[in-house]
Amino acid sequence: MSGLSERSAKRAGIVQLDRFIRTVLDAVGVDAASRDAATRAMLHGSRLGVDSHGVRLLDHYVSVFEGGRVNKAPRPTFRRTFAGVGRLDADNGHGALGAYLGMQHAIALAEEAGIGAVSVCNSSHFGPAGAFALEAAEKGYIGITFCNSDSFVRLHGGAERFHGTNPIAMAVPISQQDPWLFDMATSAIPYNRVKLYQSLGKPLPEATASDGYGRDTSDASLVEMLAPLGGEFGFKGAGLAGMVEIFSAVLSGMKLSHEILPMGGTDKHTPRQMGAFTLAIRPDAVVDRKIFDEGMRRYVEALRNSAVREGAEVMAPGDREWTVARERDVAGVPIDPDTQAAFERLAQRHAVELPWNA
Amino acid sequence: MSGLSERSAKRAGIVQLDRFIRTVLDAVGVDAASRDAATRAMLHGSRLGVDSHGVRLLDHYVSVFEGGRVNKAPRPTFRRTFAGVGRLDADNGHGALGAYLGMQHAIALAEEAGIGAVSVCNSSHFGPAGAFALEAAEKGYIGITFCNSDSFVRLHGGAERFHGTNPIAMAVPISQQDPWLFDMATSAIPYNRVKLYQSLGKPLPEATASDGYGRDTSDASLVEMLAPLGGEFGFKGAGLAGMVEIFSAVLSGMKLSHEILPMGGTDKHTPRQMGAFTLAIRPDAVVDRKIFDEGMRRYVEALRNSAVREGAEVMAPGDREWTVARERDVAGVPIDPDTQAAFERLAQRHAVELPWNA
Repeated sequence: MSGLSERSAKRAGIVQLDRFIRTVLDAVGVDAASRDAATRAMLHGSRLGVDSHGVRLLDHYVSVFEGGRVNKAPRPTFRRTFAGVGRLDADNGHGALGAYLGMQHAIALAEEAGIGAVSVCNSSHFGPAGAFALEAAEKGYIGITFCNSDSFVRLHGGAERFHGTNPIAMAVPISQQDPWLFDMATSAIPYNRVKLYQSLGKPLPEATASDGYGRDTSDASLVEMLAPLGGEFGFKGAGLAGMVEIFSAVLSGMKLSHEILPMGGTDKHTPRQMGAFTLAIRPDAVVDRKIFDEGMRRYVEALRNSAVREGAEVMAPGDREWTVARERDVAGVPIDPDTQAAFERLAQRHAVELPWNA
Repeated sequence: MSGLSERSAKRAGIVQLDRFIRTVLDAVGVDAASRDAATRAMLHGSRLGVDSHGVRLLDHYVSVFEGGRVNKAPRPTFRRTFAGVGRLDADNGHGALGAYLGMQHAIALAEEAGIGAVSVCNSSHFGPAGAFALEAAEKGYIGITFCNSDSFVRLHGGAERFHGTNPIAMAVPISQQDPWLFDMATSAIPYNRVKLYQSLGKPLPEATASDGYGRDTSDASLVEMLAPLGGEFGFKGAGLAGMVEIFSAVLSGMKLSHEILPMGGTDKHTPRQMGAFTLAIRPDAVVDRKIFDEGMRRYVEALRNSAVREGAEVMAPGDREWTVARERDVAGVPIDPDTQAAFERLAQRHAVELPWNA
């Protein structure tokens, strides 16, 4: 959405957005823990430029809290099953609450066992996967987050939606620098990018999206499903989506992507029974922390100084996002027209001050 | 190499290849444990159709054992550092020995802690990453293996070799079926495929390989480096390669891809100080094993029955490899001309019977 939203005039400050979202969620009757987690995840997206998973989700989240699909006052329970493993039952609460709690328990397990894995069950849409991996890196641990989602990506050679966009996120602390932060969908292209190309009337990159027969199309208006990452080698993207599916859904006993009720469906009442997976590792698990820190610095320095192809640039995962965050901390977050309209409805209904008037 | 080697007449039986390789490695003075591990890994590659990491590597391995780069009689040591983590020092032995031992220790840790991670240090080229993930699945565990390698893949926007082909491998047991088995390089195309296209005079798929300036080329003869997986979204393949780099090299304190001496270099004496990472998880870590097993069966059944695009097919990771294995168990392994010539030299030098005369 970034490209789209940059074209809208309206901008809102991080602090004002934070206050607006919290006040709306309070008005809807969401409990403090769920409100805090959902707000934090949305602001991660909006601050770092992942606008598709930013504050634009507020309107959707309000609708599923009010519909009952997502529990406004869940009682999550954690059970440590082995020294390095545990299961978090999110009690059908907001996915961001389940994922933050899952990672916090994974970190506690890793502190003792060197590595900690937490399987999250009875959860829901959690927003930007990178937010929960970053939770680990901010506390000095390597963090990994997986989550499957309702079907939207075909298999390699497939002709129907099978996997979700099934993201892989990883964050790694770098001493005296912003963390290495990687957050990718296993599809060949993000759907919001398809919508952007459509709005710009641009042809899609080759072999990134398909029509209803699974055939590649460069016409964004014909897109019925996304292709798995990899083009002619799309079995790689499909296999990575499978890795996420197995960790998120099979290991937790939750629904497979094609079994999950659509996020945007009319049923706003039935819990979606989604799983997720969070992993934390101590960087000093096998080598002295100084050796690990020196290795990360050496790695990203070599990467950033690597030879660049004409007209291009090289970046470490997260470099672009942290730059956007610093810009938006000053200039505010661009609000796309649909989100602007939704915020105006919410502000009126709940008598809340709009973030751009504040 | 598959496509290339299929065109050579010579075929050798699995049993004959196993005997030939063991006898040659014995003659070279390789100890039993190293011989067994290297032979098993090479036969995994040749049996499942991963010919680039199959028996064609024997000639190279003999040269580095004789040159001293790889220790013929290593004394690997394992140290459990936390309940779920340990470090295996491979004593500059064969990479397959380090990786098999690493995974075996990871399984033992997972049995107790639910999850087990082993960082392998002072190792060397280990061959097919899937072989070591499969070691876990064959024992009933989920297995993951990472390893970086000498630079051959540019960054997204890059103009020089930076990461190795840095594979990601994962294997998952499926009750009463062959395991789900995924083994991918994080490059957009395998180099052996580039060589195949060159030999066939075919243009390369778009945005998979680059010339010396990092520019995309479809002319296989101009290829100086591979592109990261993802084409226009190549930051995904580069980020996945980074994930492998961090787990294999940074976490172990070993060399980054661009610091590793080239596998094919003239220096056959200096150890390459490569790391690797192995992870094992109990499928019953958080849910009953029956629920996990039912989930995997449901997943692969839905996948195999998913709608297919015209003229294509859908497969679960491993389906193709297990089919090839069953064919080769009967028909034998095709031996490409270069490997055939190398085997003839080795057979003569060490007075060993060739696998295709046996």
